[in-house]
Amino acid sequence: MLLPAAVSAVYREWDVFRAFLLCALPVLAAGLIVMRMTPSQRSEDLRMRDGFFIVGVSWLVMSLVGAIPFMITGAIPNFADAYFETASGFTTTGSTILSEIEHLPKGILFWRSFTHWLGGMGVLVLTIAILPKLGIGGQKIMRAETTGPTMDKISFTVNDTARTLYMIYLVFTVLETVLLCLGGMSLFDSLVHTFGTVGTGGYSSYNASIGAFHSGYFEWVIGIFMMVCGVNFSLYSNVYRRTPGKIFRDPEFRVYLGIMGGATLFITCMLMAHRYYNGLADTLRTAFFQVSSIMTTTGYGTVDFDLWPLPCRFVLFLLMLIGGCAGSTGGGMKVIRIILTLKLVKRGIFRKLHPNAVSPIKVGDTIMSAETMSGVAGFVMLYLFTTLISTLVLCLEKVSLVTALSSVVACLSNIGPGFEAVGATQNFGFYSAPAKMLLSLLMIAGRLELFTVILLFTPAFWNKKK
Amino acid sequence: MLLPAAVSAVYREWDVFRAFLLCALPVLAAGLIVMRMTPSQRSEDLRMRDGFFIVGVSWLVMSLVGAIPFMITGAIPNFADAYFETASGFTTTGSTILSEIEHLPKGILFWRSFTHWLGGMGVLVLTIAILPKLGIGGQKIMRAETTGPTMDKISFTVNDTARTLYMIYLVFTVLETVLLCLGGMSLFDSLVHTFGTVGTGGYSSYNASIGAFHSGYFEWVIGIFMMVCGVNFSLYSNVYRRTPGKIFRDPEFRVYLGIMGGATLFITCMLMAHRYYNGLADTLRTAFFQVSSIMTTTGYGTVDFDLWPLPCRFVLFLLMLIGGCAGSTGGGMKVIRIILTLKLVKRGIFRKLHPNAVSPIKVGDTIMSAETMSGVAGFVMLYLFTTLISTLVLCLEKVSLVTALSSVVACLSNIGPGFEAVGATQNFGFYSAPAKMLLSLLMIAGRLELFTVILLFTPAFWNKKK
Repeated sequence: MLLPAAVSAVYREWDVFRAFLLCALPVLAAGLIVMRMTPSQRSEDLRMRDGFFIVGVSWLVMSLVGAIPFMITGAIPNFADAYFETASGFTTTGSTILSEIEHLPKGILFWRSFTHWLGGMGVLVLTIAILPKLGIGGQKIMRAETTGPTMDKISFTVNDTARTLYMIYLVFTVLETVLLCLGGMSLFDSLVHTFGTVGTGGYSSYNASIGAFHSGYFEWVIGIFMMVCGVNFSLYSNVYRRTPGKIFRDPEFRVYLGIMGGATLFITCMLMAHRYYNGLADTLRTAFFQVSSIMTTTGYGTVDFDLWPLPCRFVLFLLMLIGGCAGSTGGGMKVIRIILTLKLVKRGIFRKLHPNAVSPIKVGDTIMSAETMSGVAGFVMLYLFTTLISTLVLCLEKVSLVTALSSVVACLSNIGPGFEAVGATQNFGFYSAPAKMLLSLLMIAGRLELFTVILLFTPAFWNKKK
Repeated sequence: MLLPAAVSAVYREWDVFRAFLLCALPVLAAGLIVMRMTPSQRSEDLRMRDGFFIVGVSWLVMSLVGAIPFMITGAIPNFADAYFETASGFTTTGSTILSEIEHLPKGILFWRSFTHWLGGMGVLVLTIAILPKLGIGGQKIMRAETTGPTMDKISFTVNDTARTLYMIYLVFTVLETVLLCLGGMSLFDSLVHTFGTVGTGGYSSYNASIGAFHSGYFEWVIGIFMMVCGVNFSLYSNVYRRTPGKIFRDPEFRVYLGIMGGATLFITCMLMAHRYYNGLADTLRTAFFQVSSIMTTTGYGTVDFDLWPLPCRFVLFLLMLIGGCAGSTGGGMKVIRIILTLKLVKRGIFRKLHPNAVSPIKVGDTIMSAETMSGVAGFVMLYLFTTLISTLVLCLEKVSLVTALSSVVACLSNIGPGFEAVGATQNFGFYSAPAKMLLSLLMIAGRLELFTVILLFTPAFWNKKK
């Protein structure tokens, strides 16, 4: 919070500056107290249950603390709104309840986007690097933190991993900021949009999002960086180890590129057929940007995709469900799970013909255990059930089915915009306070791969002794 | 076809009478030729592949032959329309392309509903009883024909089973016809609506469906018979064996009743709160009728449920996905698969807390094998993928997302009406011919539990030697 305070100072927004300082000091104090209270070296006593509890609750609390600056500066006076906005930031969702953002103080806009940057790697890194300092051994946390069944398990100690991922993340951040500045974007805007990109969040400092710049260069830079950040970060350590070729041999990465390419091609053709934009180059860039933005669950926009033909919108909806690669900053069900699910279906068909054949499910050269497969199937089902049940609850608001469904998916998959009343040019402001709290919870649940948060609501979790 | 011919004769519709005779004779001849061509006693040579081929293709061909009377009488001159209507009949879907049915000849209306009756038990019985006569041993067929993973496997010889199911089916048919006649319905209407009910089809002889009668008595009778026919028919053999109590100990039956009761209650409360109908009795009857009609995938209606509040419609949509019990004449994913899927999810959550615990999935006292579970998970995924991909294709037509999605679900789950442009008072007539063929295929695929039909489209199926 000291960083946005500094930004406020630069822009001479003294009210906002005071607000951030006012928040930062108690938070710092609370942090010190928690650090002192926690028994420092007894990490062996930690059980699974405690790991989940700390991860789950810390995200809920983080969003609470992060909401305070919005409230005391009066930028977002309402509590449910401020909590929604902060949860959306930390979970790198990018859904907003604000209809007018350009008149907000720079310090607030900076903090809003900075939550993306913090949250973006928070899932993988921050909590791994910070929580151990609070006296918690990291390996048990990793189980809750790693997003998706990563193929190439990061197998050093947690602190080494954290350092490597930190570095990759920082390199991307610096690189994109420089590239945007070189294109003529102001340093402030470059930082805001870089935070939104590398965290696959999607908060912008303009109402029209990336569309405000009317610049093909920015669209390509941001589009490509979104794509890059939707990839499993542990793959990038191959570059560090001087074996970059390994990246392209990763089955998930190939399918990820394939889906993205296919969707871009399909949408380009549809838009060309309906003559939406001028010429192939414009159409291709717009299609690629939107596909990259939705599939990586960033949520930036250059145009109002809600005006596109229905098949294009439906493809975007499917991309929302799929999401990025496991181990990236993106959300959704993750590409690897889709691959495994399709293989499960394929084997089901094969088994009908050859009931006695032994047919293990493989990804690349790795044979998946029955355990992994049932875990993946369980996750996909849980994801879909959560979507359906939450949609039913949201239907109680005065909205259309498409609005309710896409609101749930946009939050659960950490995307940002949905369709119709929560479309690219709309916002979530009209929902009632309980609906906003439900959607905030869905964001956090989606970010922590569902199980972590849902566990907190099961009676079995709270039974002291098993 | 001789039966509708007779009906035409009774109503002195000589054109239609001639048309049915004209169809019946070549069909009879073709049947005799096929019977003679088939080697009679070499059923042991039959491989899995052949079983699937015969079942899959026979449904496709049956719908083709059944469409001829519609075309030559001029009732439905267009081929795609006639095929759609017949496939919808034989698969007991009940979706129609006709906007005006009351002026159609009685013989045609009778044939239309009779396809429901034939199709209704066809899945379980007719093909088991008829195909063996064509020289095919039935056990291998059973594998493709039984709908859903039945708990209490019917374990006599196929012919015994067929006879028992035949009898139960006939008893229900006679009982309902008599009850409807006693209520003052004409014999013709009673038969038409009984065929639609016991087959869980949904064709009526009136544009307003059951709503045309304005009779609470008929609604209760038909509503209860729909509910009864959505239950696993093998449970009814318990009544025959004088152990009716066993029915209520069946886990699937209990959940089925529970879901139906819960949905009825929810919809009744919502409709009462919005004051849709006069008084509790009317509202409850209307809600129960619609829930029973949709969950058993019949598709009859007394009111236009598309005017109900969104949460009610969404509950109906969920019921469409669930469907009836395995081994009933209903469609959908089947209650037992939903139960198993939920248990899979529950175990997934439990495993996160106790990674090393052994936790088999049980239904009642039966432990489910990992094989069964992966089969069920595969089926549910395949069902959802088929829905999403088909919806994407239908989006290419000029329809809304809700129309496209509900058209697919209405056909794949063999229900009948969907929402919006294919809602309770609408029909499927506006779709293009290719879309109608796709939907027809979905009906047959849904009816034969997906795998059977999808197998016909896999290259592996056509490889002569494995």
